[in-house]
Amino acid sequence: MQAVTFQGPGEVLVQEVPDPEIGHPQDALVRVEVSGICGSDLHIYHGRTPVERGFTIGHEFVGTVLAVGDDVDRAAVGDRVLGCFHSACGTCVACVRGDYHRCLRGRTFGHGANLGNLPGAQAEQLLVPNANLTLRRVPEGMSADIALFAGDVMGTGYHAISHAGTRAGDTVAVLGLGPVGLCAVQAARASGAVQVFAIDTVAERLSMAGTFGATPIHLTEEDPKRVVRAATDGLGVDVVVDAVGDPGPLGLAVSLARDAGTISGIGAYAGRAEIPLGLAWLKGLTIRTGLANVIAHVDRVLAMMSAGLLDPGPLVSRHMSLEDAAEAYAVYDRREALKIVLTP
Amino acid sequence: MQAVTFQGPGEVLVQEVPDPEIGHPQDALVRVEVSGICGSDLHIYHGRTPVERGFTIGHEFVGTVLAVGDDVDRAAVGDRVLGCFHSACGTCVACVRGDYHRCLRGRTFGHGANLGNLPGAQAEQLLVPNANLTLRRVPEGMSADIALFAGDVMGTGYHAISHAGTRAGDTVAVLGLGPVGLCAVQAARASGAVQVFAIDTVAERLSMAGTFGATPIHLTEEDPKRVVRAATDGLGVDVVVDAVGDPGPLGLAVSLARDAGTISGIGAYAGRAEIPLGLAWLKGLTIRTGLANVIAHVDRVLAMMSAGLLDPGPLVSRHMSLEDAAEAYAVYDRREALKIVLTP
Amino acid sequence: MQAVTFQGPGEVLVQEVPDPEIGHPQDALVRVEVSGICGSDLHIYHGRTPVERGFTIGHEFVGTVLAVGDDVDRAAVGDRVLGCFHSACGTCVACVRGDYHRCLRGRTFGHGANLGNLPGAQAEQLLVPNANLTLRRVPEGMSADIALFAGDVMGTGYHAISHAGTRAGDTVAVLGLGPVGLCAVQAARASGAVQVFAIDTVAERLSMAGTFGATPIHLTEEDPKRVVRAATDGLGVDVVVDAVGDPGPLGLAVSLARDAGTISGIGAYAGRAEIPLGLAWLKGLTIRTGLANVIAHVDRVLAMMSAGLLDPGPLVSRHMSLEDAAEAYAVYDRREALKIVLTP
Amino acid sequence: MQAVTFQGPGEVLVQEVPDPEIGHPQDALVRVEVSGICGSDLHIYHGRTPVERGFTIGHEFVGTVLAVGDDVDRAAVGDRVLGCFHSACGTCVACVRGDYHRCLRGRTFGHGANLGNLPGAQAEQLLVPNANLTLRRVPEGMSADIALFAGDVMGTGYHAISHAGTRAGDTVAVLGLGPVGLCAVQAARASGAVQVFAIDTVAERLSMAGTFGATPIHLTEEDPKRVVRAATDGLGVDVVVDAVGDPGPLGLAVSLARDAGTISGIGAYAGRAEIPLGLAWLKGLTIRTGLANVIAHVDRVLAMMSAGLLDPGPLVSRHMSLEDAAEAYAVYDRREALKIVLTP
Repeated sequence: MQAVTFQGPGEVLVQEVPDPEIGHPQDALVRVEVSGICGSDLHIYHGRTPVERGFTIGHEFVGTVLAVGDDVDRAAVGDRVLGCFHSACGTCVACVRGDYHRCLRGRTFGHGANLGNLPGAQAEQLLVPNANLTLRRVPEGMSADIALFAGDVMGTGYHAISHAGTRAGDTVAVLGLGPVGLCAVQAARASGAVQVFAIDTVAERLSMAGTFGATPIHLTEEDPKRVVRAATDGLGVDVVVDAVGDPGPLGLAVSLARDAGTISGIGAYAGRAEIPLGLAWLKGLTIRTGLANVIAHVDRVLAMMSAGLLDPGPLVSRHMSLEDAAEAYAVYDRREALKIVLTP
Repeated sequence: MQAVTFQGPGEVLVQEVPDPEIGHPQDALVRVEVSGICGSDLHIYHGRTPVERGFTIGHEFVGTVLAVGDDVDRAAVGDRVLGCFHSACGTCVACVRGDYHRCLRGRTFGHGANLGNLPGAQAEQLLVPNANLTLRRVPEGMSADIALFAGDVMGTGYHAISHAGTRAGDTVAVLGLGPVGLCAVQAARASGAVQVFAIDTVAERLSMAGTFGATPIHLTEEDPKRVVRAATDGLGVDVVVDAVGDPGPLGLAVSLARDAGTISGIGAYAGRAEIPLGLAWLKGLTIRTGLANVIAHVDRVLAMMSAGLLDPGPLVSRHMSLEDAAEAYAVYDRREALKIVLTP
Repeated sequence: MQAVTFQGPGEVLVQEVPDPEIGHPQDALVRVEVSGICGSDLHIYHGRTPVERGFTIGHEFVGTVLAVGDDVDRAAVGDRVLGCFHSACGTCVACVRGDYHRCLRGRTFGHGANLGNLPGAQAEQLLVPNANLTLRRVPEGMSADIALFAGDVMGTGYHAISHAGTRAGDTVAVLGLGPVGLCAVQAARASGAVQVFAIDTVAERLSMAGTFGATPIHLTEEDPKRVVRAATDGLGVDVVVDAVGDPGPLGLAVSLARDAGTISGIGAYAGRAEIPLGLAWLKGLTIRTGLANVIAHVDRVLAMMSAGLLDPGPLVSRHMSLEDAAEAYAVYDRREALKIVLTP
Repeated sequence: MQAVTFQGPGEVLVQEVPDPEIGHPQDALVRVEVSGICGSDLHIYHGRTPVERGFTIGHEFVGTVLAVGDDVDRAAVGDRVLGCFHSACGTCVACVRGDYHRCLRGRTFGHGANLGNLPGAQAEQLLVPNANLTLRRVPEGMSADIALFAGDVMGTGYHAISHAGTRAGDTVAVLGLGPVGLCAVQAARASGAVQVFAIDTVAERLSMAGTFGATPIHLTEEDPKRVVRAATDGLGVDVVVDAVGDPGPLGLAVSLARDAGTISGIGAYAGRAEIPLGLAWLKGLTIRTGLANVIAHVDRVLAMMSAGLLDPGPLVSRHMSLEDAAEAYAVYDRREALKIVLTP
C-alpha cells in the first residue's frame, strides 16, 4: 500500500510499504478515509522528534474497519471509525487510575520506535492495537473532517479546559491560537466560560477566535495583562491555557491568572525553562502539564461535536491527496493552513 | 411602609408596617425595586410552611441601597443590588466548609421565626443582614427582572447541575418544569450537556424547555424511560434533576439514571418517602439533596446571565403592583404564571 | 476437581466437577490455596440470590497461577495471586469512566447465570477472566488469610470510606459491625478519621471495633444519636457508613449525619424502602449507594495491608477444610464466625 | 506592654509598646501565653522580608481572651485560644471560594505594612481581627506547645498533603525536614500514606522523621531517586512535598514523582527559577504552589492533634522567656532548634 514515510529533516516520501495485518486479538485493521497533518508532525518533519528513516507517520485518522481480532467488540467490520492518537492497554497501574495518556504500554501512531513503533495513519491502511480503547464509531451524519479532530486536536482542547477544573461561570485566557488553542476556546465556551480571552499575533486566528465567542487580544499590539485585568475587576482569570508550549508564554500565563487560579500547560515544554515561580507561589497557582488524556474524553468530545457544541470545521483549511503529501507538509510548514486533510 | 404579610392559609394582606432600620455593622437597608413570588411562597400561602400571622413575606428582590452598616464594603449607598434568599454568617463551621446554605446562623427572608425571623422582600424596604455575603451589585445593563433570579431560582437551577458534578458532554434529565426546572435546563445546556430531556405534563412548559435547547418529553403521553433509553444506547443519563420534590418522581429519576449516575434532588422532600432503593443500589447511584447553596454560586450565575449564557427572561410571565399582592398570589396559586414580579 | 456447589436453600455440596481450562488470551488458571465464605454467600445459601443448582460458589480466593493466556502480563505461571470478587473488561463506557464495578461485561465469581455464569472460588481450581484487572500478585510476606480480604471485604470497607470523600480529620459513624463494617472502621482510622463511632448489638464485635480504634456504641443499650451529638458539638458526623443494608438503619444514618454530610450505603438494599427523605433534604445530605469498586482500589488496599495500616487478621475466626464446606456454611449461617477460610 | 520588635537585619529588641485595644466589632484582644519563632520570622530577621523598624513581629500564639467586640461569637472572654498566622474577611471573592489564604483583605501577624500592618504575637498582648475566623478555642487538655502549631506549621504540613489530593494508600516524598517538612511527614502518615520518603542532610531531622514513620533518605550520602525508584517498582511516588522552597529541590521533586503525579510546593519560592519543565511535561505532572490555607484546615488539624494522630511535641526543642528574644533569634538562626517557644 501507499504510505507517507519520514526520510530526514524536511523530507517525506509517499512510497509503497507492506500491508498491515491483524496480529493480536485486540487489533483492528482500518482502511483510511482521511488522515490529518498536525503540529506534532512538524516536530518530526523538522527532526526534533526522532523517527527512523522510512517510518510511516501520521496519527489522526478516520476510516472503515476491514478486519478485527477476536477480542474487538466496540467496532465491527464495516464500521466507520475514528482513532485516538495513541493506544492504551487499559490494565496497567496508570490506566486503572484513568491516566490513559500515561499508559505504561501506550503506543503513539507514527512516532517511531521511541513511542511504541506503531506505523502511522498517513497511509491507505492502518493497524490499530487495543482497538476497544483506541477506536470509536463515527456518530451518524458526522463528516470525516469533523470526526478527525475527536481523538487528537479537539480532545486536547477539551482536556486543557477540563483538566484545569474549569467551571461554568469561569473566565479563561487561551495563549496561542493554533488548532489546539482554537479548540480550547470552543471547549471553554461550550463548558460555560463567561469570557474567553484569546491571545495571539496572527490576525486570522484572532478573528476566528472571535467568531468562536472569544475576546481576541493581539499579543504585542495590545497589552494582554492590562486588558484582562480591566475586564476582571483587577483579579485575573480563573484558568489560563498555555497552548504554545516551549519556548512559550508561561510568564504571561502566570501574570494573567487570578490568585489560586490554574494554568493548563497543554503545549509541549522541553528541556529546562526559567519561569517566574516566585510570582506563581505568591498567587498560589496550580500548574498542570502534559499530553491530553484523549481516550478518557473521546466519548464526551464526540457527543459535543455531534450536538454541535464543538465544531472544528472552520479549522480545516485545505484538502489534499495522500500522494501529494510532500507538498502538503511544505504548505503546512509555511503555516499556510491550520489543518490539512489528506485523502488516500 | 407597605408590605405583604401572611394572614392565614390563602390570605395575604398589603398593610403598613414599621420601616426597617440598620441595627448591626453588617446590615444594609434596601429600597425594593422589584420582588418576586416564588414556589416556596406558595408553601407559606397554603399554610404548609408555618409563618406567624402578620409576618412580611417574600425572599427575592432587586433594589437600591439606602444605608449600610460600618462593616459593609461589597455594596455602598446608591448601589443597585440583588439579594440571595437567605443570609449566612461566613464564619461558622458550615460556612468555613463552604456550605453557606447550611449556615448555623443563616436566616431566610420572609419565612417567619423558624427560619431566623427575617422580614421579607415583598415590601417597600428591606433590612439585609450579613450584606457582604447576602447582596451583590447588579451588573451594568441587567434588568431587574433578570437580576431577580440570580440569588434564588436561577441559583437553584445552577446548583442542581453543578452539585451533581455535571461535566461538559454529559446527558441530563430534568423532572418538573417549574421555574427551577426550566432554569436547570438552561444551566445544563450552558454547562455543556449534550442532551437535556425535559419532562413535565404542561404543554407550555415543555415547549419553553424546547426553546431552551432541551428534548421535551410528556410525562404521561410519552414513555420517558423508553425515550431516554433509546437516545442513550440503553444506558440512561449521567445526571437526573428532580425539580419536583415531594410527592415526586424519585422513582422515575432512579429509572432514568445510568449506572453510577447522580440524582440531584433539588425539589423539597418532606416526611418519609418510599423509594426504589434496591434499584438505586444495584445501579450504584448517588443521590444529592437539599436547598441550593446560592451564596456560593451567585457570582458565577450573575456572570453567566450577564454574558447571556443564562436567560430567565422568558419565565417572567407577569408584572403586578405590590398593592395587588393578594390578587397576585391567587393568580400564582392557579398556576397561571411561572413568575410574577411585584413592583412597590 | 472438588468444588462447593449450591444445591438448594440451606444446602451446599462438595462434589467432583470438570477442571476449568484457559479459553481466552486474557484468562488465567489458578490453583486455589484458600477461599473465603462471605456474607453474600449467605444470600445464595438462603436462596435470596438465585443461583442454578450445581453451580460452583465462592468469590474470595488466594492461589497460585497454573496457566495464563497470551495477553496476561500482570501475573505469570507460579505467581501467588489474589482475586477481586468480579471481573471487568477495562474498555466499556463504565470501565473507561473508572466504574469497574458497573462494567457492562463484568462477571461475578460464583453467582450463577445472572451475574455472568462464572464458576466460583470454593474449589480446587478457578478460571479467572480479564486476569490483568481481576488478579493481583500477593505482596511478599503477606499471609493468605490477609490477602484474601483485598479484593472483597477490605476493598469494600476502603470503598465505603473513600467513596464518601472522607478527609483526614473527619468524624465517621459505622452502622453494623460485620466484616465489612469492621473493615470500614479500620479504613476510616487509617485515613485519618479522628473519631469513629462503631454501632452494633453484638458485644464481641463492639469490642473488636474498640481495639481497632473506634468508639463502640451499643445500638439498643445506648442512644447512638445522643452519644454522637454529645461528642460532635451537636453537629453529627461527617460520614456515616451503612454496612447493614436492607432492612437497615438508613433512618439512623440520616439522624447521625451532620448537615451537608454523606451517607455511604455500602450494605445491599433491595426492593423499596421508606426513608426519612424529608430530614435528609433539610440536612442537605448526599447518599451514595452500590457495590464497591474493588478493582479501582485493590492496589492501594494491598499496599495499606502490606504496610500494616489495615489488618483484617483478627476477623478470621476459623479455618476449615473445603471438604467440610457444608458444615462451614452451617457454622457461618449461625453467625458463629466473622470469616471462615476454606483450604482445599 | 513588652513586645519583640524588628530593628534591622540581625537585630530584634524587647521593648515597651502601647497596649492594643479593641477597635472593631470583630476584634478580640488576647493575653499571650506562648508565642513561637518560625522559619518565616528568620526571613524578617535577615531583612529578606521587609518590615518597618520598631514593628512587633511573631505570628504563632496561644493565649487567653481578654476582650471581644460585639460580633465575636466563636470565642469569649476567658477562653483559651490559638491563632492562625493570618486573618481573613470571610466575604470577598477569594474567601467565598474557600481560598482564605488569598483573602483580598487578609492581614498577616507581625509582617509589617506590606502584609496588613498587623502587630505580631511575640508580645504580652495581641489584637486579633476577624476573630471568628482567625481564632479557635484550644481543645480541653491540649498543651500550649501543641496548640501553637495548629494555625501555622502543622496547618501547613496538613495543607501540603491535603492540597496535593493525597489518598489513603499513596506514596509520598517530603523534601526538607524543617518543622513544616516534619509536620508534612506526620500528616502524610496520618492520612494513610503507605510509605513516606523523608529527605534531608541533617542526621537528627532524618532520625526524627524515622520515628514519625518515614523512610529517611540522606540527600547526598544516598541517591534519593534510586531509593525511591527501587521501592516503587520504578514508578516514583504519587505526591512530592517540596518543603524547602527557593533555592530548592524542585528538580529533584520532578524526578521523584510518578507519571501524572503531584508536586506540592509548600516552601516559598522567590524570583525566577529554572526548572526541568520538559520532564515535568513528559510525566504530566501537576505543580501546586503557595501559602497554606490554614483557616480552612484548622478545625481538622486541631481534631487530629487532639486525637493524637498528629503530634508536633517532639519539634519543640526549647522554651525561652520573651525577654530573651534577642538570644532566642540568634539560637534559631544558628539552626540549634527546630522550634523555640517564648513565654512572656
